[in-house]
Amino acid sequence: MENNKRYKAGLDAMEELFSQDVRNGMEGIKNISPDLWEMIVSFGFGDLYSRNTLSYSQREIITLTTLITQGAFDQLRVHLQAALNVGLSKEEIIEIIIHCAGYVGFPKAVHAMGIAGEIFEEI
Amino acid sequence: MENNKRYKAGLDAMEELFSQDVRNGMEGIKNISPDLWEMIVSFGFGDLYSRNTLSYSQREIITLTTLITQGAFDQLRVHLQAALNVGLSKEEIIEIIIHCAGYVGFPKAVHAMGIAGEIFEEI
Amino acid sequence: MENNKRYKAGLDAMEELFSQDVRNGMEGIKNISPDLWEMIVSFGFGDLYSRNTLSYSQREIITLTTLITQGAFDQLRVHLQAALNVGLSKEEIIEIIIHCAGYVGFPKAVHAMGIAGEIFEEI
Amino acid sequence: MENNKRYKAGLDAMEELFSQDVRNGMEGIKNISPDLWEMIVSFGFGDLYSRNTLSYSQREIITLTTLITQGAFDQLRVHLQAALNVGLSKEEIIEIIIHCAGYVGFPKAVHAMGIAGEIFEEI
Amino acid sequence: MENNKRYKAGLDAMEELFSQDVRNGMEGIKNISPDLWEMIVSFGFGDLYSRNTLSYSQREIITLTTLITQGAFDQLRVHLQAALNVGLSKEEIIEIIIHCAGYVGFPKAVHAMGIAGEIFEEI
Amino acid sequence: MENNKRYKAGLDAMEELFSQDVRNGMEGIKNISPDLWEMIVSFGFGDLYSRNTLSYSQREIITLTTLITQGAFDQLRVHLQAALNVGLSKEEIIEIIIHCAGYVGFPKAVHAMGIAGEIFEEI
Repeated sequence: MENNKRYKAGLDAMEELFSQDVRNGMEGIKNISPDLWEMIVSFGFGDLYSRNTLSYSQREIITLTTLITQGAFDQLRVHLQAALNVGLSKEEIIEIIIHCAGYVGFPKAVHAMGIAGEIFEEI
Repeated sequence: MENNKRYKAGLDAMEELFSQDVRNGMEGIKNISPDLWEMIVSFGFGDLYSRNTLSYSQREIITLTTLITQGAFDQLRVHLQAALNVGLSKEEIIEIIIHCAGYVGFPKAVHAMGIAGEIFEEI
Repeated sequence: MENNKRYKAGLDAMEELFSQDVRNGMEGIKNISPDLWEMIVSFGFGDLYSRNTLSYSQREIITLTTLITQGAFDQLRVHLQAALNVGLSKEEIIEIIIHCAGYVGFPKAVHAMGIAGEIFEEI
Repeated sequence: MENNKRYKAGLDAMEELFSQDVRNGMEGIKNISPDLWEMIVSFGFGDLYSRNTLSYSQREIITLTTLITQGAFDQLRVHLQAALNVGLSKEEIIEIIIHCAGYVGFPKAVHAMGIAGEIFEEI
Repeated sequence: MENNKRYKAGLDAMEELFSQDVRNGMEGIKNISPDLWEMIVSFGFGDLYSRNTLSYSQREIITLTTLITQGAFDQLRVHLQAALNVGLSKEEIIEIIIHCAGYVGFPKAVHAMGIAGEIFEEI
Repeated sequence: MENNKRYKAGLDAMEELFSQDVRNGMEGIKNISPDLWEMIVSFGFGDLYSRNTLSYSQREIITLTTLITQGAFDQLRVHLQAALNVGLSKEEIIEIIIHCAGYVGFPKAVHAMGIAGEIFEEI
């Protein structure tokens, strides 16, 4: 079954990216909408993260940047953890936020840096 | 002079990133506002691109992503060229846009891919 | 008085859309700025919701979509309730959010679905 | 093959929504990135538009609203045509834009209305 | 008639802000949607610009800033002219754009400055 | 040292704008990233706020407007205080938010007005 393959690939990607705790939290969506959950796993992680050409750490550079730019600070939290899990260092994450400052302005960069500080403390 | 150093570092970064033609085009801003031009060179390129920790090609991954996310498609053109100049391949650029599709939606990803197609043709 | 008519039409629309509790909460704005309050009622609800051509439930499809797209999640809460009040089902609301996922990306869709889950619980 | 089914469903949905001319134009993306094209068809149209619960015309209300809100005016053109194709009237489309004015402000509403005027002329 | 008063106040404000040419161009909206036109005049200009507490030139500082921030560059053109008409100098307009650079990032500031340069040339 | 001058100018501007308490809060960023902190002070406040042509109160009109437009409501809090500190009245701040309503839509204007109400209470 093709769709089972996509779903399976998505679960594998999520295991690389997120801790068991984070994945449990994400499953709240499954209770509200099993269909959105299926799309997140199969498309968001199965079709996208499982592709070649870019590494997981390059993909997290993209993900952190787009979340900062659109002001999606809730999702930024889990992807800051994912970024660390796939091998980006704290210094590199801080550097991503600094680079963003010139492109999205200081308010979003400062907000993101504050959250990064919280995540770094927790680890 | 500290500020001359920052300006000089910015010009050096711009030389790595952009062709002479693109840099000539950018100088249009200098005629309208020499002060904004000075900030772009000294802060935007001198303070940001000249930093360590991330390579130029990693910085262009960030830049392309934020421009796609905020719908800044004019600036995307020159940074698609910059991305190629600092060593990202067409395949990697296409992959960045595909990854963005899941995070910013298809309309902006499709718009970006159309522009990438035009830039790739010109080269 | 034309303006009284517009204000009266706005109050009528708000009564269809929101519970007494929600309307009481909204009146906090009246204390800070009676003029903004008058505009919200007369223009936002009187001029817009009271028009023909689209039903209240079609208008709430528009409202939910724009709030999700702009990341206005506080206002999303009261309009999720309004959407239910004017006859959209939970299934339809979930479907609106799923459709948005392809257009605004997963982060905002997931955020919206989490809030929808909270509102559905409360009812 | 599950994925062929999704792709086939996507092509069917696109046939309902877009004229042959518009679909030919869209295929430009296929030449630049066959993979993004496959995702647009299978996920964007196959997984999303082919679902139940909301009609095509309700889905176009959502699509027009999100495109206006995010300022994606290029894509707005083809979806204004799609909206007419699936049965929304000019009056309803105008009404969607008017309703948006209160939620996204006049600049984007005016921009959208100008484009709607152009599309209505062409038909 | 209250509404006639609001409409009349709107036309008066528009006369202060825009040249006859610009106002003629704006009337294109009247042909597509007389109702949106009425709202723009009565609410956008009648209710908002005609208020006290802030001067026209202060209101144009706000308007230019929000248009730059949301990337509404078409509308920026007419409001750059309006800003000059109500007494802001070229230096002040350039300064507004420079201040914005730190808050919205360089891409939008550069785009805005390029348009300002074009408008300044035309005068 | 040029850079020390820029940093010093930034600290001076921040002293005009923010209370000691707010400045202490901002220094949290210094612990996470001394480099971002240096840029905020030297570029954000030193290069931008210390310029001539616009007064501090005009600069805060710009700042409040861009923060409302981009939905940066956390930063809005400190800049509402700054706006009061540099001489804008409550009436003028309320008027800025009302003017924004027509340009960014009611949801962000209402959100901003709610926060303004909280800040006005605290003083």
